[in-house]
Amino acid sequence: MMTRIGRNTLRFGRGPWALGWAVSAGKKELEGPLGSLFDQCHEDTTLGTENWERAESRLQAEASRLALHKAGLSPGELDCVFAGDLLNQCAASVFGLCDLGIPFLGQYGACSTMAQSLAVAAVFVEAGAARRAMAVTSSHFCSAERQFRLPLEYGGQRTPTAQWTATASGAMILSREPPVGAERAVVVREACFGRMVDLGVADPANMGAAMAPAACRTLLDYFEDTASSPKDFDLILTGDLGAVGSDLLRGLLLREGCDIAAVHNDGGLMLYDRKRQDVHAGASGCGCSAAVLCSAVMGDLLAGRLGDVLFVGTGALTSATTSQQGATIPGVAHLVRLRAVSVRPGGE
Amino acid sequence: MMTRIGRNTLRFGRGPWALGWAVSAGKKELEGPLGSLFDQCHEDTTLGTENWERAESRLQAEASRLALHKAGLSPGELDCVFAGDLLNQCAASVFGLCDLGIPFLGQYGACSTMAQSLAVAAVFVEAGAARRAMAVTSSHFCSAERQFRLPLEYGGQRTPTAQWTATASGAMILSREPPVGAERAVVVREACFGRMVDLGVADPANMGAAMAPAACRTLLDYFEDTASSPKDFDLILTGDLGAVGSDLLRGLLLREGCDIAAVHNDGGLMLYDRKRQDVHAGASGCGCSAAVLCSAVMGDLLAGRLGDVLFVGTGALTSATTSQQGATIPGVAHLVRLRAVSVRPGGE
Repeated sequence: MMTRIGRNTLRFGRGPWALGWAVSAGKKELEGPLGSLFDQCHEDTTLGTENWERAESRLQAEASRLALHKAGLSPGELDCVFAGDLLNQCAASVFGLCDLGIPFLGQYGACSTMAQSLAVAAVFVEAGAARRAMAVTSSHFCSAERQFRLPLEYGGQRTPTAQWTATASGAMILSREPPVGAERAVVVREACFGRMVDLGVADPANMGAAMAPAACRTLLDYFEDTASSPKDFDLILTGDLGAVGSDLLRGLLLREGCDIAAVHNDGGLMLYDRKRQDVHAGASGCGCSAAVLCSAVMGDLLAGRLGDVLFVGTGALTSATTSQQGATIPGVAHLVRLRAVSVRPGGE
Repeated sequence: MMTRIGRNTLRFGRGPWALGWAVSAGKKELEGPLGSLFDQCHEDTTLGTENWERAESRLQAEASRLALHKAGLSPGELDCVFAGDLLNQCAASVFGLCDLGIPFLGQYGACSTMAQSLAVAAVFVEAGAARRAMAVTSSHFCSAERQFRLPLEYGGQRTPTAQWTATASGAMILSREPPVGAERAVVVREACFGRMVDLGVADPANMGAAMAPAACRTLLDYFEDTASSPKDFDLILTGDLGAVGSDLLRGLLLREGCDIAAVHNDGGLMLYDRKRQDVHAGASGCGCSAAVLCSAVMGDLLAGRLGDVLFVGTGALTSATTSQQGATIPGVAHLVRLRAVSVRPGGE
């Protein structure tokens, strides 16, 4: 059962329930403030494979396998997987998930892919189109650098607005049924799909500026649809705006009379220690928001430190080709509202 | 209302209804056997834009605008658009649809993207997550050649197994409500999402061979789920297997005791006249199946020449990077069953 609220928001019934989630990440992510919360980390950025693209696939395979394990499920108990990544033709998802042997629906929302995949999975589960569905995404610093920017061997300088693409994959399983034996669980309560926004930003080294207007529009759409405001939530987590984009988002919203500062945080500011780790404006990549969500945020929801979270995945819709052709970078942001609830019938 | 049938098939209720559809295509497509059925065609492959990628975006913008016009809708009456294409980071969809100003959910299924987008849109509409949704996709010969194979200026030889990427975009709008004033209309009756299949084909000049095993698996899954057989349908339309892939599919199915020859056709064999036009094994590309579906097939369904069609989009999940790294090409195929029905309550 789901209801459309206002223009762009969907409200779900009692589910869908988060059954299992996991993160597989790299060395720099392990050394960051959330490192101890990840399920698996790798010292070697190749993960023992022949190239970084294949390594990124392996991150997705691992995160998926771990999420299944934690949910106590076999792949055959999933009805479909929604997944995507930054690599051309979503190659990390294709080669990471092919062996699962379950229906595969590739998703592309750039770095908003985790939020998009989770929201689409929630619609499928709530509608009865799937009993259980998984959302997975990933990014890898080395595969992203050579595809979008410069080969690592070139040793190019990075600008202060540049962000560091996370080497990480996050996976989450949604189900029509609550987890067995749990007292407290997390549900997807609402979703708000985002419209693309293009304010003319064309600098591929400043993704935060390209994405902030989209996050602003989606949040304003959502607050209007649901007649809610920032104070109604414990945390508004944007995906990977980083330092530049987070400042811009707060400023853009303030101009509309909406102050999120007290409850806002950003995956791009949480994944690394910006003082200690050389990441300039923060973290980015599909794997950034997925890793933060599927570790710290889900943990805090389950433990009662958070109760009601807006997860706003943010994507910069750019390719090396269009960027070299001088095209601008449209942004998009998809919102998922997660709530911790009591599993007892009727309880919240 | 939807019901899961067997392992992977979804059956919808009375809808979702096809409200409007359109095709925008290039010169070679205009000169093919279906040329007169397309809504708009272009002599100039750049469509007056500065590059082929932008031209492909314009094809999507046009097909979308025409589908909206034919449905009598404005963009604001759509709740979301599901779209994707072959370009890196789905650039044709991003830049073609940004101006619509409605929620955008990028889809990636390689050349199966039209079937995937249509099926996901059907789930959203049937579940009440969207009152109306659009599925759009495209491909462009020139942008695909330079991205996946060789720059056109190189003048490379093409192998006999190679297919010609269609320069075309197709768009279709699905709605919870039947078209007003129509006696006969087309509904999405069922959908079957495909599993990836990788039999080790690694030749990027033979996509038909990479996709045929996936089409075979999806059709067998569907026939088993629904206890149906090829003779129950007027047409089984695969997306773009071409001559090589179509032969392989029929052979693979025959080995399983399933003979589709009497009702099978393939978008890749329909779009061009292979005797007269130099396209080797036939047409391919996201735009191929979308153009054939949104012209000839929908026309025949409405006119009563067809009643019950299985549309099986076929995708070769490859990128230039993974291909150059020697990776194999997994295939995927998504199935949508389309039926022509009477709009009168209860009628079929």
